[in-house]
Amino acid sequence: MKPVEKLVVCGVGLIGGSFAAALRQAGLVKEIVGVGRSRANLEIALQRGLIDRVEPWAEALQGAELVLVAAPVGQMDTIFAAMAPHLQAGTIVTDAGSTKRDVVAAIYRHFPQHLPHVVPAHPIAGAEKSGADAADVSLYQGRKVVVTPLPENTPDAVARVHEVWAACGAVLRQMSPQEHDQVFAAVSHLPHLLAFGLVHELATRPDAELYFDYAASGFRDFTRIAGSHPEMWRDICLANRHALLGELQAYQRQLSAFETALQAGDGAALEEAFALSSQRRSTWQPR
Amino acid sequence: MKPVEKLVVCGVGLIGGSFAAALRQAGLVKEIVGVGRSRANLEIALQRGLIDRVEPWAEALQGAELVLVAAPVGQMDTIFAAMAPHLQAGTIVTDAGSTKRDVVAAIYRHFPQHLPHVVPAHPIAGAEKSGADAADVSLYQGRKVVVTPLPENTPDAVARVHEVWAACGAVLRQMSPQEHDQVFAAVSHLPHLLAFGLVHELATRPDAELYFDYAASGFRDFTRIAGSHPEMWRDICLANRHALLGELQAYQRQLSAFETALQAGDGAALEEAFALSSQRRSTWQPR
Repeated sequence: MKPVEKLVVCGVGLIGGSFAAALRQAGLVKEIVGVGRSRANLEIALQRGLIDRVEPWAEALQGAELVLVAAPVGQMDTIFAAMAPHLQAGTIVTDAGSTKRDVVAAIYRHFPQHLPHVVPAHPIAGAEKSGADAADVSLYQGRKVVVTPLPENTPDAVARVHEVWAACGAVLRQMSPQEHDQVFAAVSHLPHLLAFGLVHELATRPDAELYFDYAASGFRDFTRIAGSHPEMWRDICLANRHALLGELQAYQRQLSAFETALQAGDGAALEEAFALSSQRRSTWQPR
Repeated sequence: MKPVEKLVVCGVGLIGGSFAAALRQAGLVKEIVGVGRSRANLEIALQRGLIDRVEPWAEALQGAELVLVAAPVGQMDTIFAAMAPHLQAGTIVTDAGSTKRDVVAAIYRHFPQHLPHVVPAHPIAGAEKSGADAADVSLYQGRKVVVTPLPENTPDAVARVHEVWAACGAVLRQMSPQEHDQVFAAVSHLPHLLAFGLVHELATRPDAELYFDYAASGFRDFTRIAGSHPEMWRDICLANRHALLGELQAYQRQLSAFETALQAGDGAALEEAFALSSQRRSTWQPR
């Protein structure tokens, strides 16, 4: 592929920083400009060589070929508003937001003249760690990136976004924003809510320490994602609340079925469900 | 400590086999006899040197100093019934059952003449792997073993059970069977039920494969315990169903609170709960 002439990364953390590092290592980017709120984080990004320099939007967007907005979804609206006055005609814009319907809505609000070149996407990579310190050149090796193109996108803009992510080692998939949000409500957003819920329920008991003292490796893994970033997950849950509510209600029906089986002492019903789960979980692994 | 003269291990799997291996390595056991249902598993245990020989109960219990029953809790009743006619006066019996109230009830049913020497216990060690193949000499290093003594136990019998587990590297704790079952309903049994539930709910959808295809590392860790043994967990859930139902209902109330917050778009309520969970989870680690 042709190297990116000027890459702008807004939010040089785990996601944005790892993208910059991977393109740099592949020799597929000429210059990388960082944009962000935290000067301290940008200094780390400069020191680590993830970016060449820091610029405000007005300068950063001059001659930019590609912009990656790698910020929590709750910040997209503000960021897009700041970008819009300075965006030049040919610049391709993509994002790394965890939800897509709300990001697409913000794109329509802020970039009505630029829709051919704004291609929404979501790299599926863990986000327990954050900041430029956590950036990792190999983060995207074999990971999925889901692109959710707009009907207005040019084939060239979509192809360019595919190409840069593939250069980072990612496997590209394409979905509608609706399908994306429904699938990730089930396999990502709901599990986070459930893990937060378990820890919260225990942590707010008067004798909470007793429980945490005896919790072991099963609890450790089950609740790992309850250590995730509260504001980021608040924003994801709000942004995707309609799909998430549907998943939460389906899960509550499942728990009610278990409750009924426990009350009835119905071992056969429990065993049947556990066996199906165990078999399915044992033969599954993340690809 | 004085070496165990004759150790009998019923169920030479991960739990029983690791106990045998650790005592053997510490040079604290003279002979180890295996008892079990699966001849194939006992052969592996013999080949790996976990046990010296296999005997039926009548012979195994002749001159036994210590018996460890390391079987799923659903099998305790049958095993105790088989042991009872052959148990000799001085033999100390302990178990490794995941629940304690039901095991204690079975002890009172089957060993009414032997209560001074039957000391219930529960080693807190992961059980995703099973069988003699999975036995690991260092499994109990730094792990907790919860002893739930009977009022009838002699101090010497309790001390001996403490001593053998400590020799395996374990940290000893003592609780009532009721407190044990309540704590483990919350930190172990409920998380297993929740993980089984999530996988089951997805696996029974017509388009299940779509979801599993996009599930990633958060889902992987959250659902790891859904790969656990179905019959074993059926038995644990049934044995401890009263405490588990209480925990399940408390958790359902937590989910209802999340549901209300999502429906209202109440970001502050979500963030407050997530922040408390994230802070608590990030400062916790299993001891």
